[in-house]
Amino acid sequence: MEKKYDANPNHPGKLFVISGPSGAGKGTICRRLLEETDIELSVSMTTRAPRNGEVEGISYFFTDRDTFIERVNAGGFLEYAEVYGNYYGTPKQLVIDKLKEGIDVVLEIDIQGAMKVKENYPDGIFIFILPPSMSELRKRITGRGTETEDAINLRLSKTLSEISYIDKYDYCVVNGLLEEAVSRVKSIIVAEHSRVAEDVRTLIERYEEEI
Amino acid sequence: MEKKYDANPNHPGKLFVISGPSGAGKGTICRRLLEETDIELSVSMTTRAPRNGEVEGISYFFTDRDTFIERVNAGGFLEYAEVYGNYYGTPKQLVIDKLKEGIDVVLEIDIQGAMKVKENYPDGIFIFILPPSMSELRKRITGRGTETEDAINLRLSKTLSEISYIDKYDYCVVNGLLEEAVSRVKSIIVAEHSRVAEDVRTLIERYEEEI
Repeated sequence: MEKKYDANPNHPGKLFVISGPSGAGKGTICRRLLEETDIELSVSMTTRAPRNGEVEGISYFFTDRDTFIERVNAGGFLEYAEVYGNYYGTPKQLVIDKLKEGIDVVLEIDIQGAMKVKENYPDGIFIFILPPSMSELRKRITGRGTETEDAINLRLSKTLSEISYIDKYDYCVVNGLLEEAVSRVKSIIVAEHSRVAEDVRTLIERYEEEI
Repeated sequence: MEKKYDANPNHPGKLFVISGPSGAGKGTICRRLLEETDIELSVSMTTRAPRNGEVEGISYFFTDRDTFIERVNAGGFLEYAEVYGNYYGTPKQLVIDKLKEGIDVVLEIDIQGAMKVKENYPDGIFIFILPPSMSELRKRITGRGTETEDAINLRLSKTLSEISYIDKYDYCVVNGLLEEAVSRVKSIIVAEHSRVAEDVRTLIERYEEEI
């Protein structure tokens, strides 16, 4: 019988961390990936109460504060943060289980969070989404009409300090034209699955067995 | 005036080395890349006499043996080899000039040659093209009808020993379905141009200047 090998010798899934300053459009890019590829979103755990329509295990995993802290202490999160008195975190084991099943996982997260993920899971692929320019970013924020001039200037200078983290990332994608940015991130996913990995020995052995 | 930055902050071109055992289909993949992308082929230099229809600087750069050897001694080739008494080589400076102009260059070469290129230009991106299986490779070689059973077996065991070089490569692409293999190599090219490179500092400075 003829054997055919997967075009992708690296069977486990990979964790793609989509990160970048607020306003760069990482959320939009993530949604497009979820719609157009087999990648799955990692579901966060939170101590905040469920809102109308939110579904356990799909929107979030809801839990109480004590259980959350216990999990933190056991190293159970790739990252976590406290926002307005509520905890939010990415459960490590759930991500790892998906990867083991061969499923790619995408995580959309700010820069601080991404740096924590990198500490806890250095094998992730870290993609930095950049706005096409500072003036375009100003336009996008101004367009929302929700912030004062001072608040906007503060946001922009925060963005600049965030951009300096770019060299901790594997890839950077400028989100000027959304279509191009999405296509570029998709290419990164395909390319990463063509990387010669440590498990390449297994592949070689399969060819050897056949001759 | 609004500044727009290239989606690709890494302006110089990159050298993509398409390599793999004979019969894996690296030639076909290269031709498709040349047809469908902006990548350019590196033109080899040879001491062999021009054949009918061959054009200087397009098919090859034709030269005499002494000039070739001189160039070898001056470290002027990314790789060179002697085949049936004629020399063939990849002129280093020509490739580097193209890369500096921002042009991607593709080099189609056997594994031995690729290893020499890696020594002389470690910044290249090395892509290993694999046949989908040994039995498929046997079919492809047999199909050509030009070789004896013994010659084919020799070729196949040579292929196996060549496959063991795969871990010197950055990527490996199994050429089962040609369309998928070509698309995968194209993705690798796009992804490599999204890598956070050493010149990322320049990019950050441009954002800083603008604020």
